[in-house]
Amino acid sequence: MAKQTIGALVFPGFELLDLYGPLEMFGFFTEHFEIQILSRTSDPVASRAGPRTLVDVAWGEGCSGGAAWSELNPGGIAAPDLLLVPGGPGTRALVDEPVTLAWLADIAPKAGHTLSVCTGSALLARAGVLDGLHATTNKAAFAWVESQGPQVHWVRQARWVKDGSFYSSSGVSAGIDMALAVIADLLGRAQAEQAALWAEYTWHDDPGRDPFAGRHGLI
Amino acid sequence: MAKQTIGALVFPGFELLDLYGPLEMFGFFTEHFEIQILSRTSDPVASRAGPRTLVDVAWGEGCSGGAAWSELNPGGIAAPDLLLVPGGPGTRALVDEPVTLAWLADIAPKAGHTLSVCTGSALLARAGVLDGLHATTNKAAFAWVESQGPQVHWVRQARWVKDGSFYSSSGVSAGIDMALAVIADLLGRAQAEQAALWAEYTWHDDPGRDPFAGRHGLI
Repeated sequence: MAKQTIGALVFPGFELLDLYGPLEMFGFFTEHFEIQILSRTSDPVASRAGPRTLVDVAWGEGCSGGAAWSELNPGGIAAPDLLLVPGGPGTRALVDEPVTLAWLADIAPKAGHTLSVCTGSALLARAGVLDGLHATTNKAAFAWVESQGPQVHWVRQARWVKDGSFYSSSGVSAGIDMALAVIADLLGRAQAEQAALWAEYTWHDDPGRDPFAGRHGLI
Repeated sequence: MAKQTIGALVFPGFELLDLYGPLEMFGFFTEHFEIQILSRTSDPVASRAGPRTLVDVAWGEGCSGGAAWSELNPGGIAAPDLLLVPGGPGTRALVDEPVTLAWLADIAPKAGHTLSVCTGSALLARAGVLDGLHATTNKAAFAWVESQGPQVHWVRQARWVKDGSFYSSSGVSAGIDMALAVIADLLGRAQAEQAALWAEYTWHDDPGRDPFAGRHGLI
């Protein structure tokens, strides 16, 4: 496999583990994956909990709010091989932010694979790229995310869901299990199991195993 | 409980999940914990996998290499309520870095609690603060860590170990389970279970449950 770029989106109020759980797993294979932190601007980005992350690629430099990304960049921009969209309370503002949604609508279908964790799927839903597909999300925020994408087939009980080139996971720590599944799909199951061993992590490798759906009254 | 500061040490080549797994859990309780990222200098710090973290507190500003921290700061500096020391390949250089070791030797005993994840315990061992205490570490790097602290009672099979004010966890993802145990100790078990639910994380709450020790021939 040729080396893949992983573009990991950050925005104010992103959830730390949504981002860094999957990146930990991909980061074991630096010979196969190169991680780039993406943000609209080059300013450092604060997570919900406080810690701030530096930006490697500012995808929206020169963009003004309100203008459609496709109008500003008619030729399109290079998409990462894998696009990772975390969740967190910051998504509540971003679902009404047209530049980010236009960028996602442009870039997500061009990425080889698009991965969302937790409420990150609300952003993809509002960008329209999940319409007609199956997806899941955080079980504590299910109703809100569902309302962001009426044309999406939301799966109420799943650790993660794969549909076409889109992988979406349940809340926060579920992104780790999903990332291992993506690694299994791209590099083989033995590599995913090796990553879990390196991280001393018990991989929940059944995408249908979701003990949290019931605790939130979804089943 | 009065609001507690969590000082989380970063250094070049730290392991992402060692740091951000515990911080995700503590970060659910912003009314009780304030997270500060600590580094010797104010420069952003690159993790092993690449992503860079901003520094909130540069504890070693003005320090030159080689001088003992206690000589440079005879009055001592304020210790965080909780000190978090992640691991990662960057620890291999730091175990021979006298300024960081002197700082840890000064600050760790003053912190209300000191937490290490993975090979972070090698740094505490070399700083001498674990002498005579029980501690654990990454099971894939056990022999190396053990050699850094001949006076430490290293526990070969444990998800995490508590001894006095020191908590040490096994590799990478074990830091999440340990952080939940610390939350249970400080805020009560119900809050730890709530954090796990928010993160959709199945907490391995038995500190003696360690399926990885056997896979590395330690038992």
